[in-house]
Amino acid sequence: MSSENKITLFETTGFPNPARIRAALAEKQALNDVEFVEIDVMNLEHRTSAFYAMNPLGTVPVLKTAEGVFISESTAITEYIDAYFDGPSLTGGTPISRGIIHMMQRRAESLVMDAVGAYFHHATDGLGAAIESYQCSEWGQHQKQRALNGFEYFDRLLANQHFVAGEQFSMADITLFYGLAFADFAKLSIPTSLTHLVEWRERMSTRPCFSHH
Amino acid sequence: MSSENKITLFETTGFPNPARIRAALAEKQALNDVEFVEIDVMNLEHRTSAFYAMNPLGTVPVLKTAEGVFISESTAITEYIDAYFDGPSLTGGTPISRGIIHMMQRRAESLVMDAVGAYFHHATDGLGAAIESYQCSEWGQHQKQRALNGFEYFDRLLANQHFVAGEQFSMADITLFYGLAFADFAKLSIPTSLTHLVEWRERMSTRPCFSHH
Repeated sequence: MSSENKITLFETTGFPNPARIRAALAEKQALNDVEFVEIDVMNLEHRTSAFYAMNPLGTVPVLKTAEGVFISESTAITEYIDAYFDGPSLTGGTPISRGIIHMMQRRAESLVMDAVGAYFHHATDGLGAAIESYQCSEWGQHQKQRALNGFEYFDRLLANQHFVAGEQFSMADITLFYGLAFADFAKLSIPTSLTHLVEWRERMSTRPCFSHH
Repeated sequence: MSSENKITLFETTGFPNPARIRAALAEKQALNDVEFVEIDVMNLEHRTSAFYAMNPLGTVPVLKTAEGVFISESTAITEYIDAYFDGPSLTGGTPISRGIIHMMQRRAESLVMDAVGAYFHHATDGLGAAIESYQCSEWGQHQKQRALNGFEYFDRLLANQHFVAGEQFSMADITLFYGLAFADFAKLSIPTSLTHLVEWRERMSTRPCFSHH
């Protein structure tokens, strides 16, 4: 069972950020080139010294390269995957596309993924008292409003273009898709009046990378 | 005074995130290839419809490409600059270096720049009542502690390597450098006991990109 020369992804099933990495690997047809290791967050495995040695911030996902280098933070892992594996670019091939994709990646994180996360972890029971060791409910409620504004922003954006960063699929679509999935999980409903966002999401849900793990 | 074919940077003098873009341009020897336009944040110019048309999030900096495309978010602008101009890479030239630089960029933002910013904007007077339209002081105080932990994290990291992402200068050094400058401005002092961080900062302060604007 030696895996010293295989890329390893430390993930937690059902969590939105690890799902982003699975989708990126699926786009690159690289799921079979990676070994997956489950981290049991509900039993605090992400707060053990063994896990902190891989990622001092204690968050999943973490990727271990074939050389044994640990990379965390979902955008950074996606950059690694996109540069390492062949296949369609997820991060952009020209200066302008790189700039726009990274801008939209950050907006999808800041306005949706991270805003929903702050609401979930601070203003609801989140993952339970043992894991949510600090909560600031006022902040969580404020971030809920940020997420609702974020849904509206992306609805307006997607009225005029097929994908989050323009006319090509990118990592920013992956981030928004799982940001909305996280909103469902956190019971933060996406208004059906946001028809462009809803249609984009339906279109995305048929894309193999989001269903075929 | 036509500038339709010149790259334009909309910035605010003295603010930490615009300074990151100046430093990236300086590293690329490209300061003379860009036109700079001051945005008067203290008089709420960033909350005008003209500015929102460039960046719906209302934040500086914003870069306008020669083609007229607007890019915001500092990492995205740096990606554009790094791919567009010649010179040493600020974002990494191999899959592993791209992954590590983006990981460290995110850590420098999350643990220092953004944490200091949350402290400054939420737990102090910040930029004054007209601009700080929403404050959550409890959150600001919590982020102050995150910043102090961040200083310690980077001190430990820099005990073993010359630069934030390893043995090569990168955008992550720029982000940490201005994150610490922001801490000074917010009167959040960096303990002198963090000798590796202090030494790295002294070394950085002699680098032309941080002094020669």
